[in-house]
Amino acid sequence: MNCLIAQSGGPTSVINSSLAGVIFENNALKYYKNVYAGLNGIEGILKEKIINLSNISSHDLKVLKYTPASALGSCRYKMKDFNIDDTEYKLFFSILSKLDIKSFFYIGGNDSMDTVSQLSEYSKKHNLDINIIGIPKTIDNDLTSTDHTPGFGSAAKYIATLTLENYFDSCVYTNNGIFILETMGRDTGWLAASACLAQVDNEPVADFIYLPEMPLDIVKFLSDVSQKFKEKNHVFIVVSEGVKDSCGNFLSKKSMSSHDKFGHAQLGGVGNYLKDLIIKSHITSRVKVLELGTSQRCSMHIASKTDIEEAFFLGKSAIHYSRDNVTGKMISIKRTNNTPYNIDTVLVNAHDVANHTKYFPFDWINKNGNHVTSECYNYLKPLINGTPDYILENSLPKFIKLR
Amino acid sequence: MNCLIAQSGGPTSVINSSLAGVIFENNALKYYKNVYAGLNGIEGILKEKIINLSNISSHDLKVLKYTPASALGSCRYKMKDFNIDDTEYKLFFSILSKLDIKSFFYIGGNDSMDTVSQLSEYSKKHNLDINIIGIPKTIDNDLTSTDHTPGFGSAAKYIATLTLENYFDSCVYTNNGIFILETMGRDTGWLAASACLAQVDNEPVADFIYLPEMPLDIVKFLSDVSQKFKEKNHVFIVVSEGVKDSCGNFLSKKSMSSHDKFGHAQLGGVGNYLKDLIIKSHITSRVKVLELGTSQRCSMHIASKTDIEEAFFLGKSAIHYSRDNVTGKMISIKRTNNTPYNIDTVLVNAHDVANHTKYFPFDWINKNGNHVTSECYNYLKPLINGTPDYILENSLPKFIKLR
Repeated sequence: MNCLIAQSGGPTSVINSSLAGVIFENNALKYYKNVYAGLNGIEGILKEKIINLSNISSHDLKVLKYTPASALGSCRYKMKDFNIDDTEYKLFFSILSKLDIKSFFYIGGNDSMDTVSQLSEYSKKHNLDINIIGIPKTIDNDLTSTDHTPGFGSAAKYIATLTLENYFDSCVYTNNGIFILETMGRDTGWLAASACLAQVDNEPVADFIYLPEMPLDIVKFLSDVSQKFKEKNHVFIVVSEGVKDSCGNFLSKKSMSSHDKFGHAQLGGVGNYLKDLIIKSHITSRVKVLELGTSQRCSMHIASKTDIEEAFFLGKSAIHYSRDNVTGKMISIKRTNNTPYNIDTVLVNAHDVANHTKYFPFDWINKNGNHVTSECYNYLKPLINGTPDYILENSLPKFIKLR
Repeated sequence: MNCLIAQSGGPTSVINSSLAGVIFENNALKYYKNVYAGLNGIEGILKEKIINLSNISSHDLKVLKYTPASALGSCRYKMKDFNIDDTEYKLFFSILSKLDIKSFFYIGGNDSMDTVSQLSEYSKKHNLDINIIGIPKTIDNDLTSTDHTPGFGSAAKYIATLTLENYFDSCVYTNNGIFILETMGRDTGWLAASACLAQVDNEPVADFIYLPEMPLDIVKFLSDVSQKFKEKNHVFIVVSEGVKDSCGNFLSKKSMSSHDKFGHAQLGGVGNYLKDLIIKSHITSRVKVLELGTSQRCSMHIASKTDIEEAFFLGKSAIHYSRDNVTGKMISIKRTNNTPYNIDTVLVNAHDVANHTKYFPFDWINKNGNHVTSECYNYLKPLINGTPDYILENSLPKFIKLR
């Protein structure tokens, strides 16, 4: 009797920590004979791209725990509804049957939980007696039914650290201008909000934080920035890539449609759009934009130890839950206490997580709509705690390539 | 009898480590009664914006050692030739005289060494008996007469780390496309070359590294990238912002007309230029660009301990050299051994450093002009060594604001 694991969706710094947790716990308990792994998620499993990870050395397993991005490869593959077309479901379970798979663990975000839900329904309907269990991951922290998602804490820590460092860098001259730091986060503001953790003398260094949950009023934005610039001769702005205007249009798309004097589309997203607005309204011509980009989701070197250990713990828990024949569920994180911080795992229906979005709470945005409240800070603080003890090689973090 | 210190030019992660070294050593030796510090470089000193740092607590001094960017503020101020107009020189030395300054330490790059040289010449000419000593800093590593510059090792380490992490992030899908990582470095390739430190199984993860010292042949570039993409279905490119075409024009912005006060072109955008080229030649439409931006010069969280300690050591040395009435000199780093790595300080004429540029050695570029040699790797490796033990506050590095 064996188990199978795969990864899906965008990478995170700790998605492999969950994978390592599954292997670690099975090596300890010897519950499954083999831990098989599908390459490139469901898409690879359907092509029988499957490897055996049971014999990984304990050294490599430790390196894997601290390797960012999806070591098994990933996919963005959506299975059809099996009531319309069950071809892939038949193929999927025939492959699992050949390998004597009793449990399938899928590490992913809300689209992956849809896959978990559907595979589980199909398995039940056909009495296949195979457990399908979801393990959450996403830097965006936008999954419902969980206090937070593995991957978010490390991304939040990276954003907080770079906010702090770039703030210091941005105010060394007498005429410093305005700095705009753009984060990821798609439709939700969790990542941008985490910049509030960057503080000096208990004051956040970011003057303004703009989230997608609060439509950006351009007039108020320019008035806020102009006033702050007059006051401090410097403004530090953090903005989420997903910020929208009052009609619900992404500001980043507006930026894409604008053209320079040569007719070329202006590159870049919401940060550059806001830069343009500031310059055109003559507040200052000195505006710098930093898009953090993909580094937000792979910055193991400054990851949160709490995040890594939670991801690892969820992987270990998956083995235990599968022994109880749990299926169609996602392993969720419940915060049992905040000070001191403590969590436990609970099971939630993958179907309830699938295709839903957990937005940043409206009442954690300040009255002016341009910053976050102390409730947000208190929620975030424990998630970035601790320094990981990854292995170094030539003073750089050591990572493993499985393929 | 007192001394005065100031910082100039672009910030680095360790420019304050040199400042801390000066204060630390004078606190130990009590050679000068007070360590005064000019805010915003020469520009601030001329406006008498001067503070006294002698009584900083040992805790704050440690935090200062690990605070990135210029804690004293910076400037990009070019003094006139005193043979043409000596107004500012008279003012400068009258301010120093009022404060009973015997030695002035200026931490900066080649423009600042020009200031050191001129101030020293003026002081000698008028028998003012004031020592003017330069302490090098620049992430670009482009100063002549020194093995390397404080600030470079930490920037190199940041670039190597992010190259490694983003490489892992960039190859998780079956159709990964091409990743372009753009570094700073102005006219020299030292920073881009440091991406060669990012290795897996002793192989650099970057397929190609392009430096300003080697003009980019567009036809060869596209042929190299196309061939590698066919071979691996993935290409990882590192490019310096200062890469030029065969006519010597910056690829970043041939149309860019803005220049800073020293006549340097403001750079940015070569990554997107290359992305355009790749897409237009139909190699693939999946091309991602990451500009590391200002984080390269303030990333204390992943700084090189070697770099920090060397910067600190140069600050300490400045006190000793000033006791020997050294003037018009820059304190330079001499590598006395590579394995094990060891350095010493030597004095060089600030005039020889001023307004010159140390280019990346042509014979450290491979024959294809698209990567670096093992000599480069061996030169870089010791410079990123060691993990700094900065103070943490809420799991983030703790920094100090002096003003």
